[in-house]
Amino acid sequence: MTKLYLSLVLLSALIATTWSAAFDMKEIHDQNQLVGISNAAGARINLLDPNAMAKNKYTPPKEKDAQFWYNLANEEIAKRLAQPQVDKRKAKNVIMFLGDGMSLTTVAAARILKGQLKGNTGEEDELSFEKFPYTGLSKTYCSNAQVPDSACTATAYLCGVKTNIVALGVTANVNFNNCSGSMDPANQVSSIATWAQAAGKATGIVTTTTLTHASPSGAYAHATNRFFESDTDIVTYGEGQNDPATCMDIATQLITQAPGKNFDVMLGGGMGKFLPKSVNDMFGNPGERSDGVNLLSKWQSLHPEGALAYNRAQLLSVDAKRIPRLIGLFNSGVMDFHKMADAATKPTLEELTKKAIEVVSQKDEGYFLFIEGGLIDYGNHFNVPQMGLDEVHELSKAVEAAVGMTNSDETLIVVTSDHAHPLSISGYPGRGTNILGLNNHDTDVNGVKYATLNYAVGTNPYLDENGKRENLEDKIDDPSFIYPSYITGTIGVHSGDDVGIFATGPQSHLFSGVMQQSTIPHLMAYASCIGKGPKLCDN
Amino acid sequence: MTKLYLSLVLLSALIATTWSAAFDMKEIHDQNQLVGISNAAGARINLLDPNAMAKNKYTPPKEKDAQFWYNLANEEIAKRLAQPQVDKRKAKNVIMFLGDGMSLTTVAAARILKGQLKGNTGEEDELSFEKFPYTGLSKTYCSNAQVPDSACTATAYLCGVKTNIVALGVTANVNFNNCSGSMDPANQVSSIATWAQAAGKATGIVTTTTLTHASPSGAYAHATNRFFESDTDIVTYGEGQNDPATCMDIATQLITQAPGKNFDVMLGGGMGKFLPKSVNDMFGNPGERSDGVNLLSKWQSLHPEGALAYNRAQLLSVDAKRIPRLIGLFNSGVMDFHKMADAATKPTLEELTKKAIEVVSQKDEGYFLFIEGGLIDYGNHFNVPQMGLDEVHELSKAVEAAVGMTNSDETLIVVTSDHAHPLSISGYPGRGTNILGLNNHDTDVNGVKYATLNYAVGTNPYLDENGKRENLEDKIDDPSFIYPSYITGTIGVHSGDDVGIFATGPQSHLFSGVMQQSTIPHLMAYASCIGKGPKLCDN
Repeated sequence: MTKLYLSLVLLSALIATTWSAAFDMKEIHDQNQLVGISNAAGARINLLDPNAMAKNKYTPPKEKDAQFWYNLANEEIAKRLAQPQVDKRKAKNVIMFLGDGMSLTTVAAARILKGQLKGNTGEEDELSFEKFPYTGLSKTYCSNAQVPDSACTATAYLCGVKTNIVALGVTANVNFNNCSGSMDPANQVSSIATWAQAAGKATGIVTTTTLTHASPSGAYAHATNRFFESDTDIVTYGEGQNDPATCMDIATQLITQAPGKNFDVMLGGGMGKFLPKSVNDMFGNPGERSDGVNLLSKWQSLHPEGALAYNRAQLLSVDAKRIPRLIGLFNSGVMDFHKMADAATKPTLEELTKKAIEVVSQKDEGYFLFIEGGLIDYGNHFNVPQMGLDEVHELSKAVEAAVGMTNSDETLIVVTSDHAHPLSISGYPGRGTNILGLNNHDTDVNGVKYATLNYAVGTNPYLDENGKRENLEDKIDDPSFIYPSYITGTIGVHSGDDVGIFATGPQSHLFSGVMQQSTIPHLMAYASCIGKGPKLCDN
Repeated sequence: MTKLYLSLVLLSALIATTWSAAFDMKEIHDQNQLVGISNAAGARINLLDPNAMAKNKYTPPKEKDAQFWYNLANEEIAKRLAQPQVDKRKAKNVIMFLGDGMSLTTVAAARILKGQLKGNTGEEDELSFEKFPYTGLSKTYCSNAQVPDSACTATAYLCGVKTNIVALGVTANVNFNNCSGSMDPANQVSSIATWAQAAGKATGIVTTTTLTHASPSGAYAHATNRFFESDTDIVTYGEGQNDPATCMDIATQLITQAPGKNFDVMLGGGMGKFLPKSVNDMFGNPGERSDGVNLLSKWQSLHPEGALAYNRAQLLSVDAKRIPRLIGLFNSGVMDFHKMADAATKPTLEELTKKAIEVVSQKDEGYFLFIEGGLIDYGNHFNVPQMGLDEVHELSKAVEAAVGMTNSDETLIVVTSDHAHPLSISGYPGRGTNILGLNNHDTDVNGVKYATLNYAVGTNPYLDENGKRENLEDKIDDPSFIYPSYITGTIGVHSGDDVGIFATGPQSHLFSGVMQQSTIPHLMAYASCIGKGPKLCDN
């Protein structure tokens, strides 16, 4: 009845008003009781309006039969029962995939988009790594940060130690921008790449960002500021108190110090960090180094058997049986979003992954490989999930390629993220609603529709002069749409919820449960019998 | 240097402006490249400002030693290795705990608050169920809803079938508010409570909401609208087209139909749904039923051996060895938030849990028990995480009590949620920052601090006349603070990200991996050898 509906709306408005005016939870709660949660008088405020929610929604016909769900459950059970109960398999090889900034909401949204791009409702789809038998949850906080960055988290998931925010490969004992302190061996921690090399294994890093970016740097660098990527950066970000003479920049560490100098394969962007300002890189931009050192020439002189690749054709032409060592740099800085990259000259993450696996597979002792989909984070920071989710799809393809190229009885594959982003899938959109579109099933108090995907904090180009939300109806279908944040910042921020861990292969059952992010490399080391901690082979 | 910093700020502002004006992703990306992600010219926009992020943050001293993290990893590995590799244990008993609306962000925030209430930094703490050895991820969408409600999800996690939003115990074949259609056995699906009863097991439901609320109703009811809790509700919510004569209300189903009428224990709120309008309940409110039926008298006449409890003292005095059947109703409607409840008369979820386990433990055949922390969802809907997170703590205590009272070799305990909420933990708060306070480490573009916890959609009492965010600094410490949403709705909404599954006991390893929410009851049935699907005992 209209009268009842109106009275519900009025009561609802009354509650909202009284709440903001009174700030008395007891009163709020009592009112709640009064107007109806527990109600006697008949009027009641519901947590949701069933009549509005239930209508104009599509149901896939086959899902109307209970047997559809019973069959699906049987498949999911059978998959789990097929896992070995006694897993004595040693992980000869370990491949760790990282989706930078790939929150669990990002995973869910990417899954839905993947299905929708195939013309389906979407929610029922799955990314390659969502098929893995075991999942865990990773607590991402760092020693001094409730919500972390990609540097301290890389130290956790690659070195097995939590540290301070923006620090890499050092303990929390040394302070931000303490340049010389990061060189003190007492403050340094070693990564699983070092442990793997000590066991005679091949090692490598792959990223869609730069080889000196926070995530891959966790595999080889020691720095109290992740931005010390070149000697120039040490001055720029060192607050005047730092001198490249007192600590070594990240690019130099990669080329000249263990474990970086021993990497069999390094593929990504960021050529500028390796070249002096006097030299232009292969993409027409001058190098960034002030010390005049050409680190790529240095690398080539140290590794005359190695090859350098600068574009897709060069990469694909590498015969891993003949080339034992490979460095590939495919952009001056971070690589382009896959959707915008020149497909002719820029390799995909899947192509980078395949070549990296080919190279490291030449070694009989096995390998440790770190592979990052680094632009998921950029998509989320820039409020362009249409880019970020596509980067998740690229990561999913890379993982699928790795699964296809490796023997699951000897290769442990772990997919995880470093930290979350405050992306949400909000409201009550119907099944198959375009995940990149407007929520057609809910509005704000003014009757204005909102996007299903939103960020808590970041840019928001859609506020009018008064700071009010604009109607997005005629904007959201633009492929360049910037998704809204509701706390307007200059750029999107990270969030503090746990991220997922997805594992398959030897000892993958150990990756379940809630764990410290810093436990992940120790579990990988356990499974592959490397490092100084407990090992499967001890048993 | 100030100049550099200023130029960064200006560039950042420039980018933001250009983005909103141009909406050209290619241009945006090129600019990004130009100003510095890949940069040659020296100026660069970083995804974060390391200097701002790294300062004024506290590091717990013991965490400065790498060994602290190695020891922690060793403990986490040892815990995993202690799990039986060959698990042939049958789950004689199954206890399913549900945190309604307990998104993974809610879990993380509750964990942090738990630690902070002990005077610690908080992030390092863990809820009781976070110690469980296995975790999975549950896909919560319903047949016609990308983001679901508590009814269709209850049908999934209790009956093993996904259905339409707001529907309970029926397939998606029957439409919303089709009253008679829900009575057609062809459209009905059975729950794990029925499967357990068929195997001679004891069964029961416990909730902090009402016994007829969406979540517990999934265990026994069939309805095309979850709000058909009493006959009066069928008229109220039936849009004029429904008649209590054509379908049975949920309360009547609970008392008079299997499996509800066979429940050994039922504890929660919602007395009004069971009493006629002519009768006042024990809390002074009139009943809600129009049919004149006193369902509690009916229950007592059907079960002369059973006892009714209306307050904490009555509950605690029940001697389960003598009382084989128990119904407890502790409020007219949903129970009070634990923080506001009268501790003298209202039992806690832990107390309800303990008594329920005592009652069902009397049966030699074992039991299935469903226990809901239902007010977590209320806390999130009403933007009062100080209430919602406290309800998570209460759930955590109840789970801990269940673990303590049961034998882990014969009792499978599964903790999960039905759906998420768009709560975020945003920005870069330092370690130990009050999770209920302002983010002291980041501001919006105007330099105004924001709350660490935010909701995407819901009430927002802190907008000025122009719709601009108010400064929360002098408000947020109020214990009645309503946390902000940035899309202003009348009430908070759900979100579509996956929720966690936490499992311990027999066959708990099967609960890992990403799965359909509807697979959960089938896995519980497998482990306890009940139902019509695959069973451990078949092997």
